Amino acid sequence: MSRNRQVIVRELPKGALTRDHFELRAADMPTVGAGEALVRTILMSIDAANRAWMQGATYREAVQAGDVMHTYAIGEVVEANDDGLKPGDLVAVESRWADYVAVNARRAQKLPDIRPLSHLLSVYGIAGKTAYHGLVGVGRPSAGETVVVSAAAGSVGMYVGQIAKALGCRAVGIAGGPEKCAWVTDALGFDACVDYRAGNLFKDLKSACPDGVDIYFDNVGGPVLETVLFQMNEKGRVVCCGAVSQYDADAPTGPRNLPGLVVVKRLRMEGFIVMDFADQDEKAQADLAAWVRDGRLTVVDDIVDGLEHAPGALIGLLAGDNRGKRMVRVAPDPA
Amino acid sequence: MSRNRQVIVRELPKGALTRDHFELRAADMPTVGAGEALVRTILMSIDAANRAWMQGATYREAVQAGDVMHTYAIGEVVEANDDGLKPGDLVAVESRWADYVAVNARRAQKLPDIRPLSHLLSVYGIAGKTAYHGLVGVGRPSAGETVVVSAAAGSVGMYVGQIAKALGCRAVGIAGGPEKCAWVTDALGFDACVDYRAGNLFKDLKSACPDGVDIYFDNVGGPVLETVLFQMNEKGRVVCCGAVSQYDADAPTGPRNLPGLVVVKRLRMEGFIVMDFADQDEKAQADLAAWVRDGRLTVVDDIVDGLEHAPGALIGLLAGDNRGKRMVRVAPDPA
Repeated sequence: MSRNRQVIVRELPKGALTRDHFELRAADMPTVGAGEALVRTILMSIDAANRAWMQGATYREAVQAGDVMHTYAIGEVVEANDDGLKPGDLVAVESRWADYVAVNARRAQKLPDIRPLSHLLSVYGIAGKTAYHGLVGVGRPSAGETVVVSAAAGSVGMYVGQIAKALGCRAVGIAGGPEKCAWVTDALGFDACVDYRAGNLFKDLKSACPDGVDIYFDNVGGPVLETVLFQMNEKGRVVCCGAVSQYDADAPTGPRNLPGLVVVKRLRMEGFIVMDFADQDEKAQADLAAWVRDGRLTVVDDIVDGLEHAPGALIGLLAGDNRGKRMVRVAPDPA
Repeated sequence: MSRNRQVIVRELPKGALTRDHFELRAADMPTVGAGEALVRTILMSIDAANRAWMQGATYREAVQAGDVMHTYAIGEVVEANDDGLKPGDLVAVESRWADYVAVNARRAQKLPDIRPLSHLLSVYGIAGKTAYHGLVGVGRPSAGETVVVSAAAGSVGMYVGQIAKALGCRAVGIAGGPEKCAWVTDALGFDACVDYRAGNLFKDLKSACPDGVDIYFDNVGGPVLETVLFQMNEKGRVVCCGAVSQYDADAPTGPRNLPGLVVVKRLRMEGFIVMDFADQDEKAQADLAAWVRDGRLTVVDDIVDGLEHAPGALIGLLAGDNRGKRMVRVAPDPA
């Protein structure tokens, strides 16, 4: 069995996250206590929320300086001190940036036999479910409405627009750069995609949304949210999924039209996590799988190879260089 | 019949509203066209929203320079060119700051026989209904929850806290100055009231809300909203009723923790107007009247006498000098 490696958070970032905040180090194999399992990491999910975990406790414990960096991952059970798991089982776990981790066996979720495994982190994972539950459960779209989503080329945004289309809505993305925007319309089939870096977001969004915005699925917060709020229709809904523009900032700025426009336009802004809609998970899975089968959902995964590249993969994600769900492959699929 | 007077908006304010933005002038009696009624103004409602109307179109048309200032008012029909109304009828109308106005008879709402008439603008009017529908319909409180309301001594806030108490919640007000806070607890029966001018809002609110905040009924926006957001419980609700701190400002500021805390605490922030809950008006009226009868709701109206004092009444309201629903009495109750 190969030697273990871990990526440590040397210190917590105050401003922008850099490679210096991390350190790759050799480590002993974890000892496996009673009720625990030794898991070999296959794929680690890389998410903007990882950066938020470094800002303090959110819906989960905070990342502390000195921690092996936290992550959500898929792995293979190598050894199990628990009746519920056996070597060879594929599981999803709250894990760390490491080749091997010891985890509480009860908290490991056994995975269905779906290939490629990466789809379990993207369309059938938290990304796809966040898009589905956020749009369907929080946004509650009607056919014919206009749905705008920021970070449209990202892991969640790419599904939000495609699900909106599947439900008969007009889907408009916001993304950074002309190439990414072209990919969002051409590869993913959005009706339009606006490049916020072009410097005319208000005007360009207005052209893309001639009937105003009914639902804004917000992954970024900040000035983009401020701009979209001005174009919301009465009784519009803002699905608050993330504020990636703020996670990596020293001094966050709030949209100056909040709460004013929520009052005058009678908007609803609502946050959520996928667990809030656990009772709808089966329907979500069935709908997503049906749409993948009939070609209405295009799945594109953004896979970076090598544990040692995890810091760069996260830093790049925060700068917006991913297309689709980003993950780091630490080991190949054993199948 | 006496000569008519009107208060004109000479120019729209850019920053703070002052008396110079208004001018009292003598005017002819309005001519009454077909389908119209001549109404003698009795009571004019003075609201923070009046100032927002000067910033542009909201849920209603904007006030323009040169307009006779817009208002919602109670008056007596003097002359009617319409079968639906007759002289002596008491009506509520979208009106102007004037002794006499000609209004579309179809839009005039005949009033029930309730005295004093001022209660029709306060507890049974838009103020009371805004408090009721906002708290009950948008906030959806459960007994035992903590409800915080800003502008707690104001026309809406004073009922929000009292209704919260009637529904078994803990009611905590935020108001400006120790006298006003004492009035909110002593006269209105709130469990606590925090003076935001004392400079320790975060700490003082935390002491007043040891179990966190489940519902925040926000009348002010700005830094007070920012402070309360930090103390919201998960799945908390922010009832967005007004942003009075921003109406009279040149450069509004947005809470820096938006939308971040909506995401991590899974909050719901929602705006509304009373018309959204028209189907619940009968129940609201019945509940409010029952609570007034059994003493759970204390009604205090803040009445300024004289049309010529309307500008000062509005300017003072924006500075927070009212206690309860402010209105201007232009003529006595004819009864």
